[in-house]
Amino acid sequence: MTTHSNDQPFPAHSPVHPPEDPAVRSIAVVILAAGKGTRMKSDLHKVLHPIAGRPMLLHLIASAAALHPAKTVVVTGAGREQVEAAVAPLGISTALQAEQLGTGHAVAQARGALAGFEGAGFEGDVLILYGDVPLVTTATMQRMIDRLHADDTPAVVVLGFRPADPGAYGRVIADAAGRMDRIVEYKDASKAERAVTLCNSGLMAVRATDLFALLDRLGNDNAAGEYYLTDIVGLAGAAGRSAAVIETGADEVAGVNSRGELAGVEAAWQAERRARAMADGATLIAPDTVWFAHDTVLGRDVVIEPNVVFGPGARVEDGATIHAFSHVEGASVGKGANVGPFARLRPGADLRADAKVGNFVEVKKAVIGEGAKVSHLTYIGDADIGAGANIGAGTITCNYDGYFKYRTVVGEGAFIGSNSALVAPVNIGAGAIVAAGSVVTQDVEADALALVRPPQIAKPGWAARFREKMIARKAAR
Amino acid sequence: MTTHSNDQPFPAHSPVHPPEDPAVRSIAVVILAAGKGTRMKSDLHKVLHPIAGRPMLLHLIASAAALHPAKTVVVTGAGREQVEAAVAPLGISTALQAEQLGTGHAVAQARGALAGFEGAGFEGDVLILYGDVPLVTTATMQRMIDRLHADDTPAVVVLGFRPADPGAYGRVIADAAGRMDRIVEYKDASKAERAVTLCNSGLMAVRATDLFALLDRLGNDNAAGEYYLTDIVGLAGAAGRSAAVIETGADEVAGVNSRGELAGVEAAWQAERRARAMADGATLIAPDTVWFAHDTVLGRDVVIEPNVVFGPGARVEDGATIHAFSHVEGASVGKGANVGPFARLRPGADLRADAKVGNFVEVKKAVIGEGAKVSHLTYIGDADIGAGANIGAGTITCNYDGYFKYRTVVGEGAFIGSNSALVAPVNIGAGAIVAAGSVVTQDVEADALALVRPPQIAKPGWAARFREKMIARKAAR
Amino acid sequence: MTTHSNDQPFPAHSPVHPPEDPAVRSIAVVILAAGKGTRMKSDLHKVLHPIAGRPMLLHLIASAAALHPAKTVVVTGAGREQVEAAVAPLGISTALQAEQLGTGHAVAQARGALAGFEGAGFEGDVLILYGDVPLVTTATMQRMIDRLHADDTPAVVVLGFRPADPGAYGRVIADAAGRMDRIVEYKDASKAERAVTLCNSGLMAVRATDLFALLDRLGNDNAAGEYYLTDIVGLAGAAGRSAAVIETGADEVAGVNSRGELAGVEAAWQAERRARAMADGATLIAPDTVWFAHDTVLGRDVVIEPNVVFGPGARVEDGATIHAFSHVEGASVGKGANVGPFARLRPGADLRADAKVGNFVEVKKAVIGEGAKVSHLTYIGDADIGAGANIGAGTITCNYDGYFKYRTVVGEGAFIGSNSALVAPVNIGAGAIVAAGSVVTQDVEADALALVRPPQIAKPGWAARFREKMIARKAAR
Repeated sequence: MTTHSNDQPFPAHSPVHPPEDPAVRSIAVVILAAGKGTRMKSDLHKVLHPIAGRPMLLHLIASAAALHPAKTVVVTGAGREQVEAAVAPLGISTALQAEQLGTGHAVAQARGALAGFEGAGFEGDVLILYGDVPLVTTATMQRMIDRLHADDTPAVVVLGFRPADPGAYGRVIADAAGRMDRIVEYKDASKAERAVTLCNSGLMAVRATDLFALLDRLGNDNAAGEYYLTDIVGLAGAAGRSAAVIETGADEVAGVNSRGELAGVEAAWQAERRARAMADGATLIAPDTVWFAHDTVLGRDVVIEPNVVFGPGARVEDGATIHAFSHVEGASVGKGANVGPFARLRPGADLRADAKVGNFVEVKKAVIGEGAKVSHLTYIGDADIGAGANIGAGTITCNYDGYFKYRTVVGEGAFIGSNSALVAPVNIGAGAIVAAGSVVTQDVEADALALVRPPQIAKPGWAARFREKMIARKAAR
Repeated sequence: MTTHSNDQPFPAHSPVHPPEDPAVRSIAVVILAAGKGTRMKSDLHKVLHPIAGRPMLLHLIASAAALHPAKTVVVTGAGREQVEAAVAPLGISTALQAEQLGTGHAVAQARGALAGFEGAGFEGDVLILYGDVPLVTTATMQRMIDRLHADDTPAVVVLGFRPADPGAYGRVIADAAGRMDRIVEYKDASKAERAVTLCNSGLMAVRATDLFALLDRLGNDNAAGEYYLTDIVGLAGAAGRSAAVIETGADEVAGVNSRGELAGVEAAWQAERRARAMADGATLIAPDTVWFAHDTVLGRDVVIEPNVVFGPGARVEDGATIHAFSHVEGASVGKGANVGPFARLRPGADLRADAKVGNFVEVKKAVIGEGAKVSHLTYIGDADIGAGANIGAGTITCNYDGYFKYRTVVGEGAFIGSNSALVAPVNIGAGAIVAAGSVVTQDVEADALALVRPPQIAKPGWAARFREKMIARKAAR
Repeated sequence: MTTHSNDQPFPAHSPVHPPEDPAVRSIAVVILAAGKGTRMKSDLHKVLHPIAGRPMLLHLIASAAALHPAKTVVVTGAGREQVEAAVAPLGISTALQAEQLGTGHAVAQARGALAGFEGAGFEGDVLILYGDVPLVTTATMQRMIDRLHADDTPAVVVLGFRPADPGAYGRVIADAAGRMDRIVEYKDASKAERAVTLCNSGLMAVRATDLFALLDRLGNDNAAGEYYLTDIVGLAGAAGRSAAVIETGADEVAGVNSRGELAGVEAAWQAERRARAMADGATLIAPDTVWFAHDTVLGRDVVIEPNVVFGPGARVEDGATIHAFSHVEGASVGKGANVGPFARLRPGADLRADAKVGNFVEVKKAVIGEGAKVSHLTYIGDADIGAGANIGAGTITCNYDGYFKYRTVVGEGAFIGSNSALVAPVNIGAGAIVAAGSVVTQDVEADALALVRPPQIAKPGWAARFREKMIARKAAR
């Protein structure tokens, strides 16, 4: 381990870890995200592929943020620009692993970023996570930190799991209390060791002082010539320190190396979310056909019919119904409101109580007032629709001139006849009526009728003559 | 058991059950629906949550109705108003269980309702069902009744099942012929008894005279202080009477205590219905994505593409195709008709043979005549579209003035140009043509052309000047 | 076997099969498709029911075609007209099995067709397939042929598989190297034989000269009085010739006898296709909800949201996104283009790079130029939309007069205001603007504004008076 010099010996037997109050200890989170992700076959960095509409790296950062870490560092490598751009708005630091020299080497790159923010060096706990293992929960992270501060003060806490097929995972050799003897790689494992079902997820919690001292001792004397983070367990043992394992479910530490695994993690996330939605009092008639975003909020007695997709930012209040084939993103659905089937609510759609948005209707940046109805084949964009208004089938708010967007205001109780175009900016007063098929370009005052109605012309017999002519032309072809 | 006085002793050894003709015996159905359903977290009573578009209680009532019961009584408690309102239109009686004193107590509340309708007291068979166990079939109910009248004339017939995980269910101790020794609660069961996989569903068939005599003897000397219906098995045995068990599949007696279990029962119902649809000669390209209602009727050689949802009241005739992403409710689809993709048929839509309803089209209370086409982006409500008519894209029937609905009639072979509004009430004669973009407010006679076509105005160079101005304005912002 | 006379003895021990170069041997493919398919309950012939949008028979023909067979013969029987009509355009021969006398008899009917095209009789290899076993791959077929020419030159190569439940399948008795002793029917099998899990799929490869010699010896001395193809294995053995088995997965030889099995085979096909799409670099957020056609082509970094259905002929280029609830058939989606949600692309839709087709939009036989936007509630049919053009919500191309279709051309950068109707044939010049709500019947020159805008009329207080009148009328009812 040569990238950082550190002359301090590893504090083997010295009592450097007096009983602490975990609540006041600092936590640093190091997330490894330097891998190339070749198997994804993507121009998008692996850790930025979304789960439930949010990049998987941000899932992990959000879960870790609930621990109130003093610092979070993402170790980048291939595709670093994409990762940096994604985390910069969150105030998250990155550290570059310029060469791919193994997980131990990757963690070591975070040393500068951690030292930097506490001057003389970070002395809290370090939680080591992987950007492509996105579903680890805050509770599990907290359990890892807590275990680090148990009475036996292990130097390293490893997160273990029991996969359905342990395959070639490294096995965790530990007693029933989680006191870990060692991690043995599959290829080095005896038959008895291979029979062990507890496997190493790679996630760890280590005190910073221990971590960097151990990393300094790490060698790369192996076939790949890499510095393996896992080896710090052995180094700790050699220095007379203990290690511990805590266990979690295999779904939680599922990793993503391919689009197939990405879909698998998405499915696991969705299954958990659906179960939670139902437990909290929403009816999902066909749970497997409802797709939530990471931040979807549902009230009680919400009914969601089959085939509903939520994008980020959706909120559905008590007693609302989302009918089949609806797409709801960045929108708020008020109490008792009715959406769909075949409705699209886009960001900024704000349906008030008992509003109705029906089939083949798109709503964007618009308030649909209490009890108002937009039932069929309509586009409402950049608008305020008053309470109790009725927007006829085929109505279009013409909100864009190719350069700017303009607002349409429809007053309470107004009635917009079918197939009308409301050319914004325009105001339709309360209680006004717009006759069917009108193109409204001027404001309509309250309680007035507006109509654009050229005379209907009749040409008797014309259709019959046309038919004859066309049939003849068709026959001639 | 004190709520009813009954001085008659239980007719233990006396031969009160001579061989009967089951066909002429009266059956009464008692459905317990007094539970609170707290885990549903719903303002809607648990037994009114729908399966396949129908409240689960009504599924059960419908299945029981096929036995032609002399009387059906629903025992209500919490939320009784909702339950009473749901069953009142069916002429079903309810009996109130004012206090939650156990299943035995609940059944006892039905005594008055049963006695009432036969004067001196009901003497037929009583089938005891649970409102939250909705999938029990008529055939199983009939088997329970039949078993009651087998040669060994058991006092009680219990419906047993073998769950994948027997868990804490009460075990049914019986011989291979279904002669039951007893039901043992899990907590009281020996290791050998716990190894028994046949469990008690709670459903029972009992002669009315036996039932109420046994209920009178029921005690509540248990931890919960409740009267358990199951205990009548032991009481019957103590009185020298036998009991019997018949067995059914676990899916059929699945209970609903949470929205998760509701979704599970819905899924089981749908799986069975899909298999039946295919066996009867319909193609379901992706069966798991087709959602039927309780009363959907499909003809032979119907093809249903992925992602189709049926609401109640749908009927699809031979050779019709329902394309992907369609929603069909209360509608009839004639032979060889084509629906969708992205079609919505609402109640009263009546598509005749070979009619076509295409994408983003809604049809409501309207006949679409034989071979007529409504292919795109159209709303047809309260209308009669003649055979062979062609309704252009973007057509809207303006059927509502905010207060009343009016009808549109389009004659045979008429052609409605795209983006037209037909302002009802209005008649378009057979073979007539409406020019594109017309707002039709007056009747059009047969074979005539109707057009509303103001002159098109050209302003050369206007768009170029506008563009320059807007680009400048945008830059100035 | 009486339908063909063939006096030549079976060439038992003579070394008629010198080492050959398989690459230059002729292959003939015989596909049995004479069965009635009664369990399908369909007027459509069983082998014409589609998998992934293509009749299952054509899947099999396409897979076999990759072997460059000299001849393919489909043996027909019931419903032969349908089958003949389906394969005639492919230049595939058919042979009639007039009577249903078993699989051996069916294969024998192909003799004439095979002899016919090589004059004195076909001397290559014959691959025997089943029209209702559609998923067999070219690779497996090739393995069967190759095995026929292995050093031990078996007379018959059988394709075996190991089903989850071997049930009543015939068992293949063979050694580990695939040298087959015999096939034993389940009913004739000993207990030890029934324990064998390798089953007979019925598919075979046989040299033509062997095949017809063996078929001539086939008897029908069995309960059904049928000539069983399988019996040629025993006849070969009796003649001192060897037989061999090669093995494949059970999914690949799944047969279709009912609509339920049809759905099962469709599901297996889709599962394989989805996995391949992901492995090739497409993101499928919810793979189980994406339905591919047999020929769907996807680029790299394509994202497919939940609930997307592809019909035949779809192509999606790199970096394009297909949003939820979209239906894409016969359409091309260019690089970086955005489709949906709720979009329908029909045959001939050609979206160029970065084009956008949004919700409730249908596109048919139309180019959507680079970066052009058709975002909402629009029908574009028979049109050329120029690069960068913006088509407003509710626009309809009126392309049909009931007899002929006409084209609409929209120039680069043109802006079509919402709710307009473009009455084809019509040209909108580059950079032109069409005002909202216009019905455009005349060409618009470049950079011009076109508008059809009758005056808007206001009737103050009219709506209030109407409301009063209607409320009174409603009350009077």
